[in-house]
This record gives sequence, structure tokens and C-alpha cells, in this order.
Amino acid sequence: MTDLPRIGFAGLGIMGAPMAGHLLAAGYRVSGYNRSRSPRIEELLAKGLAWADSPAALAAQCDIVITMLGFPSDVESVWTEGLLPAARPGTLLIDMTTSSPSLARRLAEAAAAKGCAALDAPVSGGDVGARNATLSIMVGGAEADFARALPVFEKMGKTIRLIGGPGAGQHCKMANQIVIASTVMGTAEGLSYARAAGLDPAKVLEAIGPGAASSFQLNVLGPKMLAGDFAPGFMVKHFLKDLGIALEEAAAMKLDLPGLRQARALFERLREAKGGEVGTQAIIAAYAGG
Amino acid sequence: MTDLPRIGFAGLGIMGAPMAGHLLAAGYRVSGYNRSRSPRIEELLAKGLAWADSPAALAAQCDIVITMLGFPSDVESVWTEGLLPAARPGTLLIDMTTSSPSLARRLAEAAAAKGCAALDAPVSGGDVGARNATLSIMVGGAEADFARALPVFEKMGKTIRLIGGPGAGQHCKMANQIVIASTVMGTAEGLSYARAAGLDPAKVLEAIGPGAASSFQLNVLGPKMLAGDFAPGFMVKHFLKDLGIALEEAAAMKLDLPGLRQARALFERLREAKGGEVGTQAIIAAYAGG
Repeated sequence: MTDLPRIGFAGLGIMGAPMAGHLLAAGYRVSGYNRSRSPRIEELLAKGLAWADSPAALAAQCDIVITMLGFPSDVESVWTEGLLPAARPGTLLIDMTTSSPSLARRLAEAAAAKGCAALDAPVSGGDVGARNATLSIMVGGAEADFARALPVFEKMGKTIRLIGGPGAGQHCKMANQIVIASTVMGTAEGLSYARAAGLDPAKVLEAIGPGAASSFQLNVLGPKMLAGDFAPGFMVKHFLKDLGIALEEAAAMKLDLPGLRQARALFERLREAKGGEVGTQAIIAAYAGG
Repeated sequence: MTDLPRIGFAGLGIMGAPMAGHLLAAGYRVSGYNRSRSPRIEELLAKGLAWADSPAALAAQCDIVITMLGFPSDVESVWTEGLLPAARPGTLLIDMTTSSPSLARRLAEAAAAKGCAALDAPVSGGDVGARNATLSIMVGGAEADFARALPVFEKMGKTIRLIGGPGAGQHCKMANQIVIASTVMGTAEGLSYARAAGLDPAKVLEAIGPGAASSFQLNVLGPKMLAGDFAPGFMVKHFLKDLGIALEEAAAMKLDLPGLRQARALFERLREAKGGEVGTQAIIAAYAGG
């Protein structure tokens, strides 16, 4: 076991905790840091997680440090104020938060200046994917660093791809969210129309679900929309964070994405009406009769 | 064979010709009408298709008459000027064109007034589905009439559903097109973003294709978008017809569908730039660098 790198994990929430748990189960020595303690974290401690009192303490004792935080501002402060000043040269820092591609590039440069390596490696698959170790992991960075991280990623995910250099993982995740934004909007619009036309929407789903309209959003979230089941697989407030990053990056590239703009406006209206903690399928509530 | 109804088929184009061919192959006596002759129609005549010189002549000699035309205006004139005045009481008239739900209801009333029955039964699955008899058929009308038509539908399609009363088939098809409109827009936006960010879009497709972004549009049309292969599976001019009907019907229901409005604006811009005969995946050309 002593050959395995010691891993630090900062951010032990609904995603991070099960991910760190998989690493412990695989025999890694794992240290953890989180702003607050929770029953989820107590369980990890009982399974052998070592506790670190600060990001700096975490970085000082680990070979690979993973962050799984909330917002880009969290990533920036944890990395620049905690991890980077304390990390030993040669440490590999990996941000698995969905965050800004531009920030990922800046942090990779800052890490290199310290003699450290960095990867951006956001995931998709949600809390279910985190619990089942079936996440998709989209990675940006250097090939050698990807190779070094791959055995660790393989404990947490299934589809793992090096997309390109620093920031490319975040860009890929943004592309994913951009596709989803209009797809979930189209799903909500089609089902709202069916309902307004007086059709039995379950019959409509059955008829159109297998064809050219088919999607994860239609076939998996469509039935939840119709049932009014707005329990979050993925929360509106997190999706809005991602759409904001995507629009900012697109603007910097002078790329206009009107479908994305429209979807964000609907999700903002939804957040005002129902709060940010409902699932993205609640977008159907933004339509008459939804 | 004399127990089988005699079927009339008006509209023997890229969809109608193979559909009529399946009926001939199944042993039905089929009469055909089309505004013009084509090699495709000569083949059907060689296989036993009887020719009718007008919609009225077609209706006069058949028990079930199917129309597969271009625009709602075509459907309206063929039905009101040709089929309905000539059809014998008891004739079952079926419009398989993607057309207006309101028109379908009006035509069903006009048919009933003549002692005839009517179904609206638009399809999805495109010319490939028509050739392979794997169409999805979404039907509006009375149950007894659906039961009478079902053996005929089964020769042309695979997923066949009675959705509701007159117009419900067209409404269901509109719901299908509404879902597709924003889904294909989201696909184009996500891939345009990936390209603008300098990623290898093929790697992005591989990474995001299996997850929450997955759809027929992303997984089947996405690669064509990236290859610049704009050969039509479904032509932009036909899609624009459908989106126009959907928006008109939605407006009549006081239902605002901003994603659909946005998608139509993009497809209109695309038609101006590339003409209406490219496939819907060409929407990626509406984006910078597309």
C-alpha cells in the first residue's frame, strides 16, 4: 500500500464524500478537508479518512490533492490561499468542481510556477454517478499528469477522457451543459404543448420517446416533469452557475448562443418562483399550466 | 384478397411512394394519384398500382383513402375539392401529412357531414422509416376508425398509437417537432462552443454523448454537423413549415414557447443563407465558425 500516493480531498459534500469513499475503499490513504463536519464525513472518518484542519494542512501532507467545491470563487480561494502556498513541488492538484475554464488555465499556470502540476477534471453523472463510481470525467491538462491521475479517476468514474490542455475539461463540461440547457427547454416546451392541447402527455411520451425527439432529458426527466416530481437530480442553482460560466466564456469568444440565453432566462424565472433547490426538470413550471 | 379494402394513395413522393409500395406488397389493391409522374411512380405501376387521374377519381373507387402531401393548403384543397365531394359514404379518409391540428378537426367534421370517417395520422421516421416500414404513426380520431385502419398502418409503421380524438395525431407530431427544435439547437450550440474553444469536437462528442446531454440529435446528427454533412434526412423547409404550424397552434392556446421561437429564427436565417433543402443539422451553420 505504501506505493500508492496519499490523496487529499477538499470538499466532502454530496459529490465529494462518496468519491473520497471510493478512494478509501480502494486502499488509498486519504486526507479530507471540509468547511464543516457532517454525518457523511463522520462515516468517512470511521473508515479511515485522516482529517486536515485547512486546505494548507491538506496540501502539505498529500501527493495528489482533489477539490470538489461549489463555485469558481471557492476554487480560486482554496487553491490560491490554501493549496498552492503549501503544496510541495511535484504535487498534482486536480479540480473536479464544474468551474470556469479561464480560471482553470490561470490555476494551472500558478501551479506550474510552484513546480506543481494541475488538471481540471469536472464530472457529469450527478450524485448517483458519484455514489456508483460511474461518473464521466472530462479532463484538461498534460498527458503525463493525466496518466498519473488515471488510476485515481478510475476509482470514481467510468468514462474518463483527456480532452486537451488546461481548461479543456471545463470547456467540455460547458459544452455538455449548453447541449442540456436547450434540450431540457425543448422537452418542457413539447410536453407543455401536449398538455395545453388536451392530449394525454404520457401517450405522447410513449409515441415520441423512441424517435428523433429522444433524449435523456425527454425519456428520463420528461416523466418527472409530467408527475410534478421536482426532486433534484441536479439543482437549478447549480445549473444556473454553469450556464453563467458558459455564457461568459462564449462572450469572450464572441460566440452568440441565443438558445442558451433563452434557457437561462427561463431558469432564472424558475428560481424566482420556486427557489434554486428544485431539479432542472422543474423548468416545465416556467410554462403556462406547467 | 377480395376481403381487403381497396386503398387510394394521394401523394407518391419520397414518403408516399415507398409507403404505397408496402401496401401493394402486402396484397392490397392500391390506386394512386400524384400531381406529376416520376420514375418512382412508374415502378409502382409496374408492381400493380392502378392510376387515378384526379383526387376525385381516387376517392370514387376506394374504401380507404390516404393522403401524404406537402403543405396544409395542399391537404385542404385535395380533401375539400377532390376527395370529400367524390367519396362514397363509409369511406375512411386518412391524412398522413404533417399538417395543422385545427385543419384536421375541420376536415374530420366535413367528412362526418358526408357520412365518411377521418383520421389524422402524421408520421415520424423520415424517408428511411418510410422505406423500411418502421415509421412512428401518431393518430387522432375515433377508436373504431383507428381499429379499421390499424392493419393498413401496420404495413407502413412500427410504433402506432391512437393519441386522442380528431387533431390529436397532428398535435402529437407538433409536440415531437417542438422537442426536436430546441434539442437540435442545443446540440449545435454545444458543438459550436466546443469548436470555438479549440477542443477536438469528436472527443467532446465521445465524452458527453452517453450522459445527460445524450439525444438522437446529438448522437446521430452531431457527427454530421461536425463533418459538414448537410445532406437532408429532414429538410429545413419542411421543418420550418412544421414549426410555423406549431407556433400558430400554441398562440391560439395562449402558450408562449420562447425556445421554439428562437429555434425558428435560427432556421429562417439558415434558409436565407443555405436554402431550404439542406438537412436540419445544418443549423450549426447559423453559428460562428459553423
